Amino acid sequence: MSYLPVWLRDYRRADFSHDLVASATLLVLLVPQGLAYALLAGLPPQAGLYASIAPVLVYALFGSSATLSVGPAALPSLMTATALAGLAVPGSAAWIALAGAVALLSGLLRVVLAWLRFGFVANFLSQSVVGGFVAGSAVLIVLSQSPQLFGLTAHGATAWQIAVSLVHALPGYNPSALALSAAALVLLLVGKRWLRPLLQRLGLPAARADLAAKAFPIVVVVLGGLVVQLGQLPVRVVGALPNGLPPLSWPLIDLAGLQAIWPAVLAIALVGFVDSYSLAQSLALKRRETVEPDRELFALGAANTAAGLTGGFPVSASFGRSAANELAGARTQLAGVLAAGWMALLLLGFTELFASLPLAVLAATIVTAVSQMIDLSVLKLAWRYDRRDALVYLTTAACVLLLGVVDAILLGVGLSLALFIWRTSQPHLAVLGRVPGTEHYRNILRYEAVTEPDILAVRVDESLYFANIRFVRAALVALLRERPATRQLLLVLSAVNAIDVSALQGLRELNRGLREQGVQLHLAVVKGPVMDQLKQSGFLDELSGAVHLSTHAAMQALKAGENSDFII
Amino acid sequence: MSYLPVWLRDYRRADFSHDLVASATLLVLLVPQGLAYALLAGLPPQAGLYASIAPVLVYALFGSSATLSVGPAALPSLMTATALAGLAVPGSAAWIALAGAVALLSGLLRVVLAWLRFGFVANFLSQSVVGGFVAGSAVLIVLSQSPQLFGLTAHGATAWQIAVSLVHALPGYNPSALALSAAALVLLLVGKRWLRPLLQRLGLPAARADLAAKAFPIVVVVLGGLVVQLGQLPVRVVGALPNGLPPLSWPLIDLAGLQAIWPAVLAIALVGFVDSYSLAQSLALKRRETVEPDRELFALGAANTAAGLTGGFPVSASFGRSAANELAGARTQLAGVLAAGWMALLLLGFTELFASLPLAVLAATIVTAVSQMIDLSVLKLAWRYDRRDALVYLTTAACVLLLGVVDAILLGVGLSLALFIWRTSQPHLAVLGRVPGTEHYRNILRYEAVTEPDILAVRVDESLYFANIRFVRAALVALLRERPATRQLLLVLSAVNAIDVSALQGLRELNRGLREQGVQLHLAVVKGPVMDQLKQSGFLDELSGAVHLSTHAAMQALKAGENSDFII
Repeated sequence: MSYLPVWLRDYRRADFSHDLVASATLLVLLVPQGLAYALLAGLPPQAGLYASIAPVLVYALFGSSATLSVGPAALPSLMTATALAGLAVPGSAAWIALAGAVALLSGLLRVVLAWLRFGFVANFLSQSVVGGFVAGSAVLIVLSQSPQLFGLTAHGATAWQIAVSLVHALPGYNPSALALSAAALVLLLVGKRWLRPLLQRLGLPAARADLAAKAFPIVVVVLGGLVVQLGQLPVRVVGALPNGLPPLSWPLIDLAGLQAIWPAVLAIALVGFVDSYSLAQSLALKRRETVEPDRELFALGAANTAAGLTGGFPVSASFGRSAANELAGARTQLAGVLAAGWMALLLLGFTELFASLPLAVLAATIVTAVSQMIDLSVLKLAWRYDRRDALVYLTTAACVLLLGVVDAILLGVGLSLALFIWRTSQPHLAVLGRVPGTEHYRNILRYEAVTEPDILAVRVDESLYFANIRFVRAALVALLRERPATRQLLLVLSAVNAIDVSALQGLRELNRGLREQGVQLHLAVVKGPVMDQLKQSGFLDELSGAVHLSTHAAMQALKAGENSDFII
Repeated sequence: MSYLPVWLRDYRRADFSHDLVASATLLVLLVPQGLAYALLAGLPPQAGLYASIAPVLVYALFGSSATLSVGPAALPSLMTATALAGLAVPGSAAWIALAGAVALLSGLLRVVLAWLRFGFVANFLSQSVVGGFVAGSAVLIVLSQSPQLFGLTAHGATAWQIAVSLVHALPGYNPSALALSAAALVLLLVGKRWLRPLLQRLGLPAARADLAAKAFPIVVVVLGGLVVQLGQLPVRVVGALPNGLPPLSWPLIDLAGLQAIWPAVLAIALVGFVDSYSLAQSLALKRRETVEPDRELFALGAANTAAGLTGGFPVSASFGRSAANELAGARTQLAGVLAAGWMALLLLGFTELFASLPLAVLAATIVTAVSQMIDLSVLKLAWRYDRRDALVYLTTAACVLLLGVVDAILLGVGLSLALFIWRTSQPHLAVLGRVPGTEHYRNILRYEAVTEPDILAVRVDESLYFANIRFVRAALVALLRERPATRQLLLVLSAVNAIDVSALQGLRELNRGLREQGVQLHLAVVKGPVMDQLKQSGFLDELSGAVHLSTHAAMQALKAGENSDFII
């Protein structure tokens, strides 16, 4: 029984009606999104519907989030399209096989990484990298969908290539398609802005009004289909889809193809995971649950493997659908499972319903959906809070547009790690003085604090390691030179969480050098784990001074000329 | 006047006799070392003498260390030899030009980097990387000199290539050379071990005895020359050297050569600088001086540029010579300048003195000199102190032998940075309790400390940033789940030196998620710079709890049910 997913083991009958309602909401969102994201990925529309069945079931089986909606999503679709640009003709059998292979391989890779407990890699994508990446991607998606708005096709992996391709094709635009997409855009934007308050004023409860506004795109898409059918408009439509369940298929590709797609496989595995994991984590926080990264990595890998084997393409968690799912009252993953069931029923006998849906209107739904992915609040906050983070955001966004999505991720991660190391390599040092009348010692530059003429107390605000020990030593020597009367140097290590071997050697040399000048070196507020290591290394026997429990105890002992070893 | 080097501006007449004595010591060391390191670098012997003149003068002009001896050294010679292996025939005109180009380019590169204030890069080579690199290089040097001990030549860039080359050549060994080198090795080892105590017992003061022992190699080399000349032994000797000062030459190389040598140029620039800078720093510490990294980088770059333009090869600071220079009483760089003058005199009229010095004996002096470069104490300490540092040491040493010196440096730096990031990405969290009868709060796992049932105080032992905020959040949620009665979570930030934007967002989400569960989030002991940033970001307005000056103040306020904002 323990092989069953948690939610199924403890399933309560009372949850069923909630999950049933939520499943209808999910279906209403999955149909237009599946068709549109397949379009974005350069695949036939049914691929998006296929990707809404097996991956959903597999995630429900292994995933830990109750309400996360896995399936077609904007980012992996865009990444697939840009990764395959130039390798095959979009929509061709080769393209379909390559997209399936990307899903399968990025899925298997995640399963292997989960087994190796590599879920922690998610932590190395900072908010700024993800924010810049998503913003850049959203612009790229709008750009890649704009040809469809004009009834055209245009391809390319970078913003520049797509723009050039679009400009070349623009003279042959389709007026009917343009009219349809313009009308759809206006409707969608108006609906997004005013539908919810309108429905609320008409007496609908807030949650229901919100849900109706979220499901509004399907109304626009159905309207578009009706207009095309009634008006016999000459625009590209979804067309006849094959009836029947998703095919079981093994996407075969050759070695050259494999070499060409592996950076994209890696990037999709990483980005898809981070995106889904962050979402699962923020959903879980509300319920005081924890999400285990390795388990999520495995579940998402299995879902993508399933997508690759059933005619789909890379899938991920969708923020919008997950939020709507929660809003619709979903209690467990059964909502997703039921929605997959409805989708299978549609595929078995009702695909002609989709035939006359116009691609221009589907593109318009993508454009309005992704425009809300551009979250400038992260950038604004970063700009105010720490310019370096803003730099990472902007660099990553620019790289997405100019270099491509894979390079952008690697560059963003590299840059943010480099900035972190840069910061820790030049730590803040504070000369401490006593706040008069208290036992507190504070930075003399920030407080009216009193120092002793022959004792210099310095707090080091960073763990000591190879990249900063030379800096710290040079800074301490400079401080000592400014205060030639110093006979005792007290290092307050309250903020030093670790000391590596290089730093230990640096401290040794400092201790030796100071002793030759007749200056004693003392330590205070040494943390437990650091103390254990220092004891074991023998450094404490060499130390010319002593280790003190607190800054105050140290100052008292030094002023009294004592030298007893109060060890924490 | 301010263009003059510091030591010259304030030169005291009393220092002159000291510098004069030291200059003789330097000369006695520079002659055999120059000849031997030129041999190691695959260059004609005079290159080592040329490299002892202009670079010394240029360093004296720009460098900040009073006693550092710049000139021919083991590491850059080895790196030159391995970098050029396969590009030309050792000793050929093409090889000489390439070696000069490496010196010139690594010099100019350092000058440019100094101008860009890139001296801080020295900090990114940890003791373990440098220790492993030097140990691996020493083994490689011994291996590359062993053919000379047998009167043979063998080449290659890696340990494996050299060993294979040696084994193939071994049947043709030269018995006279082997006898000479064996005798020299025994003499050098005996001298190194027993000469100093012997001289001391004979009544020499300790410092003089030490100095004599350091200069002993020249006695062995001269003895070797006499034996060869008197016995007419058929071994390879230094031979006739051109009389005259070093030639001014511009080492011309083509683009293909440039592409082949640039990784070596980069590695020599980096390693040479780190090596010299560390040495200069430890010499300066004794005098309470600071060494400015950018100035040292510039001085070393200028010295190498000079070496490249005057028929030399890459130079660096020599640990042994610098120590002997100090021991001989050198007060300023004038000692080096005078030694360069004596060397120029030798080159002008006395080169026939070197003609019969046997290469096998020079090789023996290198082997004994570099064997003391293998400092296993760093490895032993690392093994005891932190296995990860030991891993870095061993990996770097193994890479030097198996992959080559350039890859080894890059790999070592990458590995040590990765380990640092890995450690900071999984910070230590301590649940705090009150030590009974005090106002101190300590880790409840280490101390008998008392906690409150509805208040959870946690100290985070690391700065919060993107790579660890998810870990910290998950750990806090797990702690809260273990203690369902918790109504107040107090984060003690005494060891948090920075909070980046990603971590700020993580704290925001934590605060929001906890509020939904009715748990208040409080902060205590927030550092000044962090407090400034948090205030500015607006987070403190959102915070469900308050910011407290100390852990004790926070616990008192929380127990009393107060919620006043004591802001540091």
